[in-house]
Formats: sequence, C-alpha cells, structure tokens
Amino acid sequence: MLKEALYHRPKNNFAYAYDEQTLHIRLRARKDDAWTVQLIYGDPYEWKDGNWLFKKELMLKTGSDAFYDYYLVSVCPEFRRVRYGFELTDSNETIVYTEKGFFDSAPTTDIAPYFCFPYLYSVDVFRTPDWVKNTVWYQIFPERYANGNSSNDPQGTLAWGSADPTPTNFFGGDFQGILLHLDHLASLGINGIYFTPIFKAASNHKYDTIDYLEIDPQFGTKEEFRQLVEACHEKGIKVMLDAVFNHSGFYFGPFQDVLTHQENSNYKNWFHIREFPVVTDPLPNYDTFAFEKTMPKLNTANPEVKDYLLHAVRYWTEEFNVDGWRLDVANEVDHQFWREFRKTIKSIKPDAYILGEIWHDAMPWLQGDQFDAVMNYPFSTLVLDYIARSKINALEFIEKISSILHSYPENVNEVMFNLLGSHDTERILTVTGGNTNKVRQLFVLLLSFPGTPCIYYGDEIGMTGGRDPGCRKCMEWNPEAQNHELFTDLQHLIRLKKEVPLFSTKGRISFLTTEDTPDLLMYVKASDDERLLFAINTTASEQKLSPALFGSAQQLINLWTNEELKPDSARVMPDDFLMLRWNAR
Amino acid sequence: MLKEALYHRPKNNFAYAYDEQTLHIRLRARKDDAWTVQLIYGDPYEWKDGNWLFKKELMLKTGSDAFYDYYLVSVCPEFRRVRYGFELTDSNETIVYTEKGFFDSAPTTDIAPYFCFPYLYSVDVFRTPDWVKNTVWYQIFPERYANGNSSNDPQGTLAWGSADPTPTNFFGGDFQGILLHLDHLASLGINGIYFTPIFKAASNHKYDTIDYLEIDPQFGTKEEFRQLVEACHEKGIKVMLDAVFNHSGFYFGPFQDVLTHQENSNYKNWFHIREFPVVTDPLPNYDTFAFEKTMPKLNTANPEVKDYLLHAVRYWTEEFNVDGWRLDVANEVDHQFWREFRKTIKSIKPDAYILGEIWHDAMPWLQGDQFDAVMNYPFSTLVLDYIARSKINALEFIEKISSILHSYPENVNEVMFNLLGSHDTERILTVTGGNTNKVRQLFVLLLSFPGTPCIYYGDEIGMTGGRDPGCRKCMEWNPEAQNHELFTDLQHLIRLKKEVPLFSTKGRISFLTTEDTPDLLMYVKASDDERLLFAINTTASEQKLSPALFGSAQQLINLWTNEELKPDSARVMPDDFLMLRWNAR
Repeated sequence: MLKEALYHRPKNNFAYAYDEQTLHIRLRARKDDAWTVQLIYGDPYEWKDGNWLFKKELMLKTGSDAFYDYYLVSVCPEFRRVRYGFELTDSNETIVYTEKGFFDSAPTTDIAPYFCFPYLYSVDVFRTPDWVKNTVWYQIFPERYANGNSSNDPQGTLAWGSADPTPTNFFGGDFQGILLHLDHLASLGINGIYFTPIFKAASNHKYDTIDYLEIDPQFGTKEEFRQLVEACHEKGIKVMLDAVFNHSGFYFGPFQDVLTHQENSNYKNWFHIREFPVVTDPLPNYDTFAFEKTMPKLNTANPEVKDYLLHAVRYWTEEFNVDGWRLDVANEVDHQFWREFRKTIKSIKPDAYILGEIWHDAMPWLQGDQFDAVMNYPFSTLVLDYIARSKINALEFIEKISSILHSYPENVNEVMFNLLGSHDTERILTVTGGNTNKVRQLFVLLLSFPGTPCIYYGDEIGMTGGRDPGCRKCMEWNPEAQNHELFTDLQHLIRLKKEVPLFSTKGRISFLTTEDTPDLLMYVKASDDERLLFAINTTASEQKLSPALFGSAQQLINLWTNEELKPDSARVMPDDFLMLRWNAR
Repeated sequence: MLKEALYHRPKNNFAYAYDEQTLHIRLRARKDDAWTVQLIYGDPYEWKDGNWLFKKELMLKTGSDAFYDYYLVSVCPEFRRVRYGFELTDSNETIVYTEKGFFDSAPTTDIAPYFCFPYLYSVDVFRTPDWVKNTVWYQIFPERYANGNSSNDPQGTLAWGSADPTPTNFFGGDFQGILLHLDHLASLGINGIYFTPIFKAASNHKYDTIDYLEIDPQFGTKEEFRQLVEACHEKGIKVMLDAVFNHSGFYFGPFQDVLTHQENSNYKNWFHIREFPVVTDPLPNYDTFAFEKTMPKLNTANPEVKDYLLHAVRYWTEEFNVDGWRLDVANEVDHQFWREFRKTIKSIKPDAYILGEIWHDAMPWLQGDQFDAVMNYPFSTLVLDYIARSKINALEFIEKISSILHSYPENVNEVMFNLLGSHDTERILTVTGGNTNKVRQLFVLLLSFPGTPCIYYGDEIGMTGGRDPGCRKCMEWNPEAQNHELFTDLQHLIRLKKEVPLFSTKGRISFLTTEDTPDLLMYVKASDDERLLFAINTTASEQKLSPALFGSAQQLINLWTNEELKPDSARVMPDDFLMLRWNAR
C-alpha cells in the first residue's frame, strides 16, 4: 500500500463530533489501494493485564476522487473518549496507521502512538441549524425584483425592464414589489429568501453601505421591511440578509468624516489608512476591497467598529426577526470578528444561519466557531462545467465534487449553500446556450444534492443574462415572456424534495458512474429500506440502465412521472434525467 | 513525482501568519522526489490584460521524515493578501499543485484553482510570549523540594528523605523551603519555575483540589506565596502554576455537597452525573478523570463552574502576579472553556504563557485561540529512545522529531515546552542506567533544541527514581550526595544558551546526520554570519567530523572549552558531545 498517500489528522473534516454521542472518523488512502480498512479504537483508560482493550470496526468507502479513496465510520464511545488507529489490508500486507507512524499490528501495551479524540463535549459539537437542511432558497436582488411603489423610486428611475441593466441605472425595485409577488414564490415552493443588501447605500447593488442601521429609502421603510419579514414568515419563508462588513461605502458617515477631518477625525481608526492626508487618486492610500477606492476596508479589529457592526446585526435580528446572515467577502475579514459575530447572533437566535461568501476551501471558517456554511461556488463551477459547458465528463465531475464533499464535516455539508449562479455570475440559461433541458438537469442535480439549494431570481422562468450587469435584469413579470414549463418543473422538483426524505439531505450520496458510461451521471441516495437513483444523461444517445443497479428489486417507481417500471426497462433520453425509487427490503 | 504524497492546506501548520507582515507557507512532498519547489504567488486583485500578475519564489527544504520532505518559504505580501500554488520540478516533469488539482503550468486567466490566504490581520496573528523563548524552566514538586517550616507540616510528616516516596506519604516540603533554596536555582541559571499544584488538596501531589482559592496549608500562607513570587521575580525568575480544571478532588466543597444533598444539591450540574443517587462503588456513576472516583470531572460548560474557575485564575494572576499556567489533562476539557480561559488570562497579562498538558498531536489547541504551547512529551520519548534507551538511532530520531517540528507553526515551536522527564515519568539518570555522560548529552540536546527547556528538580544533581512515586523523592540537599560535575555542566550549558543567541531559539535547526553515521547526531543552527554545529556521539567509538561540514571556514571554536581548532581536527568521543562555532562570512 502507498503509505505516503494515507492521511488523517483529528478534528476538522477527519475526526469530528457529528452530534453529542457520535464521532465521525474519516481516512484518506490512495485510490484502489486497500481491500479493507478497519478502525481500531477504545477508551484510553480501559486496560486489562497491561493490555489495552480495543475494538475493531469496518470503515466504509464514501467516495473517491482522482487520487484517493475516502473511508468513514461512526462511533459512539461509551465514555466519550477515544484513542484510535487504522488497520488496512490488501493482497500483500496488513498495516496499522497511527499518529506516530506504521506498525505491523495494533500496539497493545502502549497507546501513545494512537490518534486521540480526547473527549466529546456537547458544547464543542458543531451544530448547524436544522431548518436549513429543509430549506430551498431564492435569491432576490431587490432593485430588480419588482417596483411596487413608485413614490420611493430614486431619481432617474427607468421604466421596469425598459433598458438593459448597467452598473449605474435604476429600475425602482422595492419591498412593496416583493410583497406583491410573494405568491409567485410560495407557489414555486421556496421557503427561504436571501436578499442582497437592503441597507442605505449609493449604488443599485447596495454593496457600498452608507448606513448599516437604515433601510435604503428606494426599497421602503423599516415598517415595510417588518411587514415583508412577517409576510414571509406567515408563508413559512425564512429571511436572510447580506452583511457587507469587509468594507463600507465611500459615503459611509465615518469615512466621509475622515475625508473631511483627516488626521483629526474621530473615525481615523475605523479604516486601514496607510498615511495622511487620505487621497483616492491615482491609487487610494487606504486599504479597500480589491483596489476599489469607493469601498474602504473597515477595521473590524477596532472595538468601536466591532460594536457598531455587531449592534447593527443585533438590531436587525432582534427587532425584525431576521433568520440568517450572508457575509460578503467573508474571507477577507479577521477571524476574531467572526467569532464575536457568531456569539452575538447565536445568543439572540441559536438557530440563525451564518453563511460566508468564500469561493475557495473554507475549512478555517468552518470549525464551529465562525460560520455554519459557505456559498458553494466550487459546486457551481463543477456542475456547469459538466452539464452546461461540457468541459468535464461525469467521471471528472464525480472525482472533483467528491473531493469537496470530503473536505468538510457532514454537519457542514448538510447546510452547504449550493447555487448555480448569482448576481456575480452568468445566468444558467445563458451558460447552457439557451438549452432548457440542461437547465432542468441542473435543477435536478441542485435540488437532490446534499446541502441547501438556492435559486437565483428569474432562473425559474428562464431569464438570460451574462455576467454582471447582464445577470441583474429586471425580473420578468410578463406571463407571455416567462417559461412556464421550466417553472412547473422546478415547482415539481421542490415538491418532491419536500415530500421524499431521500431527495433531501438525509441519506448519503453515492456515485455510480463507471468508465463505461463516463457521460452518464448516476447517483444513489439510500436509507435503510429505500433507494433513490438519479441519472442525468449528457450524452447524445439514449442510455439504458443496467438492471444490476437495482439489486433484487422487481418494481421501480419513476418518481417524476409516478409510473411503475421494471428494472430492465430503465432508460434515460439524451439531455434528460431519471429518478427512480425502490424498496430495498 | 508522486502526486498522492503532496499535501498543503491553508492555516494550521501549513500556511500561517508568522508575524504582522510575514506568512509562512509550507509544502509536504514525497521524500527525495522534487528537485526544486517554487511558490507561485500574487495579490488576487493584481491583473494586467486579463492575466494574473504572479511571482515565483524558491522554497527551501527544512527537513525530512521517513516519508516526506518539507519545504518552507516566507513571504510578505504588500497588500496582505495572497493567492498561491506550488511548482515542482524533477528530472521528468514540472507540475503545478493547486487547491483544485494539478496543472502543467501556472494558470493565468483564472485564479480560482489557487490556494488562498485571503488576508493577514494583526489581530489574527498567533503571538506567543517572547520571554518564554529565552526561559529555562525548572519544575518543582513542592511537597518534595525542601521543608523550610516544620510548623505547617501535615500530620505524619516523615523526616526529610528518611523514606522512599509512596503515593500517600508526606515529607513537609513548603514555600519556605523553596525560598531558602532560591540561590541554588539562581546559581544554576534557570529563569522560570513550573510549580505542580499548590492549591488546597488532600494528596501529596495536590492534583485533587479541595479549594481553588486557597493555598494548601502544608505549603504556607498566601502571604508566603506572595513573598515567594516576589523573590523569584527579583531574581528574574518567572512563575508558572498548575491549573487542574479537568476534575476536582473528592473533597472539593461542591462535590461533597452533591454527595450530601444528591439531586437537591445546588451543585449537581457542576459535574457530569449520569444518575442519582451518586455512588462511588463499584464504579462511579459520574464522569471522572480516567476511572478514578476521587477525581470527579468538572462540568466546564456550566457557566457557574466557568465563572468559579476563571475567577480563580484571575485572582492568582492579578493578585499574585503569576506569569503562566500549565493546564492539567488539558485535552479532556472542552475547547470553549479554553477559549474563554485564554481571553481571561491575556486580558490581564497579555504575555502570560499558557501551556497545555497534551501528549499527542495538539494542533486543534494551538490555533491561537487556546494555548501557546504544549508539554512536548513526544520529544521526551524520542530523545530518551535515542540517547538513553538506544531503541532508535540518530537517523530515526531525526525523522521522527522532524515530523513533530513540521506539525506546528514556528510560533508554537519557539515556545514549545521541551522536557526530559517530570513527576509522571522515570528520572533521566535512571533511564540511562546511571550514565551521567548520557544525561549530559540529553541536557545538550534539550538546551539547544528549538523551544523552551524544562529541567525536573533534582536531575541537575543526579537524582534517580523510577516512575511515580519513585521520581518524587525528596530533593537531595546533602552536598556530598549531589553530583556537582553534572550541576556545573548544566550551569555551563544554561550560561551558553543565554550568551550565544544561536544556541537558543533563533536560527532554524538543520540536521546533518547521514546514513554513513547513523548513530552520530549532528545539527547546525545558522544565522546570516554564524554557524553553530552540535554533535552527539552515541556510538562506541571516536567520530571524526568531515571538514566539508565547515565550508571554507579555517578556524572553529569549541564553544564548550573555548579552544580554537582546525576543521580537520574536529572529533567527538563516545558518549560525548561537541559544539563548534564558526563565522560563515
């Protein structure tokens, strides 16, 4: 076996408390290397006659990427303490892998070599909010959703949909507009809305905050926001706001004060100013988001800034009953701030959802002390590369997505924020070149994948648009311009997700695709007594599914059509998908 | 190259802020695999004509273990942000290793694949106390150091040294005794004392606390403790106490209250009680340290317990000016408690030293939010296995110790608490079978190794003793029974450590031992203009050092004897050591 490829290190994604009783222990090994992998484990203080009393438990392979296999076992140690190692066997040898190296057999007189998970504490369990596991999100960019009240339109507002979006134009979207269309959302079936920023700001996107304690007047009043949240809650829809704490806007009062009073400003330590006088040209001499001078970076280590921002989230959470916070450019804010942020929010609302915008590996923020999950852009890239762009085949998709799935604890995967696009990316119908069948396949994959899915406003009725500003068009409310078939299909999918437990996060995902059918993506979700198979065909021809997939099942149900079929007649058409359910007992 | 062996993941020991400007980036690769390794890095927002502007920097090999080479580079990104990957070259190929897999050359139009260290914040830097880097510790077990005041002796106290130590006997050691012998310590040169517990407790070891706010009467009064701390500080000696917070003693007031009032006790949630009535036999039905019924586990998640214990450390730190805390069974206490513990201590004394007792890999506690360092028992085991027990040779020692050195950030290594023994292990003279030459070699290795060394009381004058209780004999104060040569040698070593910067933590350690001389341990510590070579000979014969080791240096200084010698006459006798200094310019 290739010893160099073995990897395990306690905590993070390799050994963690899944709940108060259960430890998840994972091992990474070279792909196709081990025949069996067993966990050797026991209580560090249980000995008899100078020998450690350990047990063994088979570990199951939960997936593979291009280089590695991943194994998992759940254990519930009686006294909540465990020492452990791994016994791997192949045709040639048996090796025991420990923290301090390799052995031919399990050491019994000295447990120092073993890995250690010293104690499982309830207070250390990374608890992510349960409701998120059953939420289907919908992202709204408020300026572009609906104009329900023309009296609050900013100057120069254009007629709804009368022009292409630009970085600077306005169409008057507001809370009243959203309120008027809540039925559209309830009918679609979504039960969570993620609003991009709603606080007072200068731009149409509002990522340049002027005042974190005020609603932007173009969207409405605080009272209207309260009504909107209440109306959402009445329909069972949760509300998540966007916290832009990495930087303020140029017109944020404290920054303007610095520009006016320079070194004498009381707010000079609210930012990261490299020298005085502060200048914006040719390059800002203060830290900014990227090199954008209109977005001065906030000094979130300054207690005054911390107090101000935490007061703001406390205010909106307590007073307006907001359910979650999406954190803009979350990776560029200090960890200490996020630790206090979590404490603040969770002390008000223990099941609030804290979602970081991080596009890369986010393990350092997902240790239980900062975020619950991150925006899964790596997922977006992979599903689009596979289904929409045909840049990778199903096998490559599986390898890469498995690598991501195994890079976080299950507690995180269950609430991972999966999305196909956002206000920062091309719309999916545009990426697919207008192919609604592919969009449907994308929705199937999104809705059945472990995590919490999010639909970008308008994608449900087939809107198009390139990267920002193209993807920020006015929501299409003209029924004749809406794709009703797409809407109905998505509605159907969301209903299935709600009704069929296996569709949702419960039940681990197993990929089935083989090298024989590298363009047919197949995965199964399994419970003790039921199986659910998804097949997504991105090939040019009809694909027959091997009856061997269904074990001894005689009867399958096509979950989409509700028709019964025999295992030997399971087939999926090009550009189409299939979802089959059967009893496993 | 063996792609499966490559490992990097940001934060922890692989990418971390060494200080406010400097990132350390490490890579692990298969041993002897790559010819050159370069870091590809740049600011995520610096682009030109659609191409990312990156730089390259050579990474240096900092060590190897049995399977891997480790590479390191320090970078100081101008805007404190960095995206990066690794370019590895061997005779056959060049590969680029990123977070999202491998490339033939560095991607330039999309930085999504690269690893990310999004922002270097001062507030996130893991700052360990500077003074610890220059401290030589001395561990005192107060009951056995010296009896300076017979009026506070517990009942049944035996005459000093009149019997072998047992788990239950007493010899009357106290603060007054330590105070009387401070000159011994000052003369040895140590500048930090680690006291095992001093709070009111029933046993001779005091790990079974009765009252965390009282001094054990057998040691003296609070006033005497204050005098002792002040006397230490006057001599430039820091004071570290032992915090036993995992469990209390059986006679701890709140536990006694539970035994008396059972379910009606106000303290029933101070412990982990599985059922009422609480019983101790045949097995305790409450959680304990190990299965020791006299040590009931404290519920450190209970705010009342937390307040009580944090009040106690606050009290001793604020009122008595204590400089550090050693945390008993630290791995079995919840992380949340330690996070609050750190905040409490550091808010009183920002440079207090927080030292966890953890015998295994301790990365989860060494992320900057909990401890500064841990007791380096893996170091103890390895140096004793090599020098005292001859269980491993120098090459194996180097491989195993390199693995440990690369498992933590340098910030931690610089204050790692290195020890050869303690009240929980055999004494070193006993482990060496009475060979004082080997003890000297152990001291040389201990004092020159990265980290902060600790000497167990009595080892400096050649005391012997097996595992607990043997290692807890009364300190030998009879000059005729003390080994003065050993004392003088250790004194000399400590003086060198203070006078010669390279002896101490500054200057990274490089091991030189080759397969030709697997029993001769050689390592060099280097600064820009100076080199210091240590050689420890555990072979049976004299070893001549290759003149090639000294480059173009013509003249060496034997640091131990202060004699000059020529590179071709450098040799080290069996059971002996050598330390050579030369100018590198």
